[in-house]
Amino acid sequence: MYPLDHVGIAVENLDESITFYQRQLGAQLIHREIVASQATEVAFIALPNCLIELLTPNRPESPVAKFLAKHGSGLHHLCYRVPDVSAELARQRSLGAMLIDGTPRKGARGHLIAFVHPKSMNGVLTEFCQAT
Amino acid sequence: MYPLDHVGIAVENLDESITFYQRQLGAQLIHREIVASQATEVAFIALPNCLIELLTPNRPESPVAKFLAKHGSGLHHLCYRVPDVSAELARQRSLGAMLIDGTPRKGARGHLIAFVHPKSMNGVLTEFCQAT
Repeated sequence: MYPLDHVGIAVENLDESITFYQRQLGAQLIHREIVASQATEVAFIALPNCLIELLTPNRPESPVAKFLAKHGSGLHHLCYRVPDVSAELARQRSLGAMLIDGTPRKGARGHLIAFVHPKSMNGVLTEFCQAT
Repeated sequence: MYPLDHVGIAVENLDESITFYQRQLGAQLIHREIVASQATEVAFIALPNCLIELLTPNRPESPVAKFLAKHGSGLHHLCYRVPDVSAELARQRSLGAMLIDGTPRKGARGHLIAFVHPKSMNGVLTEFCQAT
């Protein structure tokens, strides 16, 4: 049983959304970063028990740009914190999950991350992350 | 700053999804209930730091049935735990939020709950809940 590390929310304008979460929910910005490999800029907002990751595309070919074009702003993915992403990918594969990332890669905050396809996760794009 | 009480996920088949979360994530079923006012059946799955609420329609006119017809299974809403839902609704209204529920009503687990429209919440259907 893994803790929820963060809820990913795709947004059109990162600055406006950070301000929104600060004002509307009293949440705190703790980290902001460009993730070049995903063509996104992300901001992590702290709640008392988990994080919200706001994601916005910084290039048109970003997967988040495609998501926004199709759905608009909104809930994008869930990320669970695991002790070992490689072991978790092997376990998910053995349970029949469709992996998007066959091996862990470096994501935001220097974490090792990997995504599993929503088709095999109850319709939810699912990320596993490991602090390094 | 409020803790995330749960992530709501709309599903087609509650039994299958409960089994899925138990097997795939080692999560535990802690509560299951029919919420007649919303024409839904819900199950709460415990993670170490928050809950997942699986929702499925139990009548065709359920709002969750409409969601599933449009989007399929997937992320549905976020719920924050607050000390006083009435006070929070007044605060959200003063900040310009569009309330779905103008006053708190009884939801699952006997909690007082109220929903705020996604249009005024960064595209995220947002619930506030208060234990009673």
